[in-house]
Order: sequence, then structure tokens, then C-alpha cells
Amino acid sequence: MISGSLAFALKEKGLAQKIIGVSRTEASIQKALQRGFIDATASLEEAVAQSDLIYVAIPVSAAKPMMKKILNLMRNDQILVDAGSTKASLCAALSHHPMRGRWVATHPMWGTEHSGPEAATHDAFRGRACVICEKEQSDAGALQSIEEMYRSLGMHLVYMDAKSHDVHAAYVSHISHITSFALANTVLKKEKETDAIFQLAGGGFESTVRLAKSSPDMWTPIFLENRENVLDVLDEHIQQLKQFRISIDARDESALMKLMENANRIKRIL
Amino acid sequence: MISGSLAFALKEKGLAQKIIGVSRTEASIQKALQRGFIDATASLEEAVAQSDLIYVAIPVSAAKPMMKKILNLMRNDQILVDAGSTKASLCAALSHHPMRGRWVATHPMWGTEHSGPEAATHDAFRGRACVICEKEQSDAGALQSIEEMYRSLGMHLVYMDAKSHDVHAAYVSHISHITSFALANTVLKKEKETDAIFQLAGGGFESTVRLAKSSPDMWTPIFLENRENVLDVLDEHIQQLKQFRISIDARDESALMKLMENANRIKRIL
Repeated sequence: MISGSLAFALKEKGLAQKIIGVSRTEASIQKALQRGFIDATASLEEAVAQSDLIYVAIPVSAAKPMMKKILNLMRNDQILVDAGSTKASLCAALSHHPMRGRWVATHPMWGTEHSGPEAATHDAFRGRACVICEKEQSDAGALQSIEEMYRSLGMHLVYMDAKSHDVHAAYVSHISHITSFALANTVLKKEKETDAIFQLAGGGFESTVRLAKSSPDMWTPIFLENRENVLDVLDEHIQQLKQFRISIDARDESALMKLMENANRIKRIL
Repeated sequence: MISGSLAFALKEKGLAQKIIGVSRTEASIQKALQRGFIDATASLEEAVAQSDLIYVAIPVSAAKPMMKKILNLMRNDQILVDAGSTKASLCAALSHHPMRGRWVATHPMWGTEHSGPEAATHDAFRGRACVICEKEQSDAGALQSIEEMYRSLGMHLVYMDAKSHDVHAAYVSHISHITSFALANTVLKKEKETDAIFQLAGGGFESTVRLAKSSPDMWTPIFLENRENVLDVLDEHIQQLKQFRISIDARDESALMKLMENANRIKRIL
């Protein structure tokens, strides 16, 4: 979804002449060719040899060995970019690679609950933030090219060290997904009559539970790579839920009101 | 928002000639007149005397005395409808009122995080469910009129006893709101740099936290009226979050994957 949406955008903006798709899944390649966002496929080695820009959007657990392999294959006139949702462990693992300067570590903050080439969309990314991590580790020219690429998609750039990125991502992305998965499990477990869910679910439920449709293959490694931060935020979230539990249990109207008034402050931000 | 959106719809469909707004808040009346979804205002007594249909959309804690007062004022050719989010306690309290037959207890399952007359919208309700409770307690003619009214808005009707309604509402609506309020509080507490939230928050966070903008005045009485069911579902939700906590803490990839695969079953329903 991410690389396909990027491919659509780069072609439509005339920023890419030829896009070569590489995937371990043959069906994904066929779908990508059919949808027209890649022009060809090749082995990883051939694809890297022919490319000016190499873009990696794979589960974060697979990224570390794959990125190392790609950096080993690269020349000094090529650029590597990744779109991984966690950054600290990857940046640390590759920090001493002799080709580190050719890699720009990024996290475009766009996604949906869908995945795979069917989910690639036109005009994705627009209006969202793209985090660039450890920019001082990238060669100036490579960095500038990638900044221009993301800006041309309509993204605004945010610069962070990799550890700060992972802390922030736990707050604004990872916890939302856990909450949503857990909410789906709550309802699926307790609500035997799934017909009733379907009949009654209004917009509120659908928007809160939407992320529960997300890919376990993608999210398992994210939660484990960002384990400490995720556990920290999750503990706080459980404490916040318990505050609601205590207030409701005690019929404490004023405490309950205060909890919600505090939550309302999110209006000023979002 | 609810009564204003209904007023827009009834006027646009030619189902209402004149709409009289009654509110304890003078500013709401002025706004409703200005937006044109009410034609006049009056005291409760005058308004009831002049109306064929009386529609009550107020916080559920206020509904009980207000509905009793209205039923006391009503004639046998008038119909009372309420839009309350909890039903069991209200239905029980009014079950022996001599005018019970003129009341149709409903819950149109539509709403947004907004409230008040500014938030009333055109073409609301369409495609959503409307629950009608204890339909056998309503006079056949009154029931039929209200069924036709909701169907004309594009809603599909679901019939339930009031207790079942409250159980289902806890699952598909009330828990989503608590989750969302608690998520906002989590992020607001832990994330001192609110600029980072604003810059980084993608679609996932926004949709999960959207309901945290909802009105504490409306939701406090809902959670307290539906206390037992809400506590029950909230306990289950905290348990489900703890399952994620345990799996992440133990780096148990397969357990984590299973939790998310289970959550993915929501795809078949929503």
C-alpha cells in the first residue's frame, strides 16, 4: 500500500520514469503490474543495480537485514529510503554502515487499515507529516532530494532523533491501534449476537474500531520493536480507563465530568 | 444537534408545517431560529398544547422528569417520542403512566462528536439504525406514524426490549466513547509536547480519538444510567488490553498475532 501509493504519486508527478517492483509475494507483483504502478519486476540485486532511488516499505522486523543487504549492494550515486514505523533500532543497527550517508530514514505518517497492492491509492500522503530521523547521518544531497520528493507529495517535514520518533509514534499511532484491536476483541467476545453489532453500530463505533482491521503481520513487529514505549503508553491508557471505571462505579458525576472535560482539550489540538 | 437535524429533515420532506423549539438555553433558541430549523419558540406548556408530535432530545438524566411532565400535559391525539441513548430506566419509570401508549421510545443510532444547534445537519440519520423499544407499550397508530417518520429519514428499524437495548448500546456506542476519552487523556497526560501530536497525528489517531470531543453533559448521565452494562463491558475491555500488554511484555509474537487476527474478524461485520 505504501510503496504502491508512492509509485502512483511519483509517476503522476513525473518524478519517476521507470519503477521496478520487488516483492517476496508473486501475487503482489502481478497485482502491481496490473494496476500499473510498477513497470517491471526483477531480483533484488538487479533492481538495486538499475535504480536511482530504492524505497523500502516492509514490516519493520524484516527491514534490518534487508536494508543492510541493500546498502551492501549500493553505489555512491544512489539513495535508499525506508518508510518504517519504528526507527530507533534500525538507525542504531545501521549507524556504522559505510554507506549510511546514502540512506534517509523516514516515516511518512499516512496509512489506512488496509494493506497490499490493492490498497494503494492515488493522492495519498497529502497534508500529512513525514518524519525524517537522524538527518545529519544522511549525505546533504541525498537528504535534499528526499525532502523535495516528500514535499512534492504535499507532506510537511518534521525532524527528530530516532528515539524521540519512537516515543511520539507510540502515543499518536501505536496506542490507537492497540485500543482499536482490543475494542474489537471486547465486542466480539461479549456480543454473541454479531447481527446486533452490524445493525446498531453507528459512526462512533466504526471510526473507533476501524484500525482493528489492520494487518497483524505489519503490527506485530511494530509493537515488539517499540516494546518499551508501547508498554509505557499502554500502562497509562489502562490507568486512564480505570479512572473512568472508578468514577462510574462510585456514581461520581463530578469526577466523571472532569475526566471528559480534560479529554475535550484534544479539540484545541486536533 | 439531534432535534435540529430531525427538524431540518421533517421540513425538507414536507412532514412538518410548523416547528416550535423549546430549550432551557435562550442562545440555542436564537441559533435555531437563525438557522431556520424552528419557526417559533414557546413555553413547554404552550408548545405541547399546539403540537401533534413532541420530540424530546435532552440528556438522559433530565428525560425522566421532563417526559413525565409532558405526558401529564398531553391529549390522546398527540404523540411523544424521545431519542435517549439509554432506555431501561426511562421505560420502567413511565411504564404505568396513563398516557404511556402515546409515547414511542426510540434511539436513532446517529450522532457525531458535536452537540448543540450549530451541529444540526441536513440529511442526518440516513442509512443508520433506529431502535424502537417496548413497541407493544405504544398505541398502534402512534407507533406506525413514528415508524413511517424514521423510515422516511432513510433509517432501518430494529425492535428491542429496553434492557437489551442498553446492553447492546454499551457494546457498540458507550464503550467506544470511554475508550476515546481515555485515549485522549493518555496522550494529553504523557505527551507534554502537544505540538508533536498536532504535527504527527495521522488519520488513525484522529479517528480513534474523535469521540473524545463529545459533550461531558450528555455522556455523564449516559454512563451513570447504564452503569452496570458499561462497567461490565469496560472490565472486559481492560482485560483485552491486558492481553496485549502480557503478549508484548513477553515478546510473544504468536500470541500477539492471534489477538490481532481475532480482532480482524470485525471486517466480516463492519
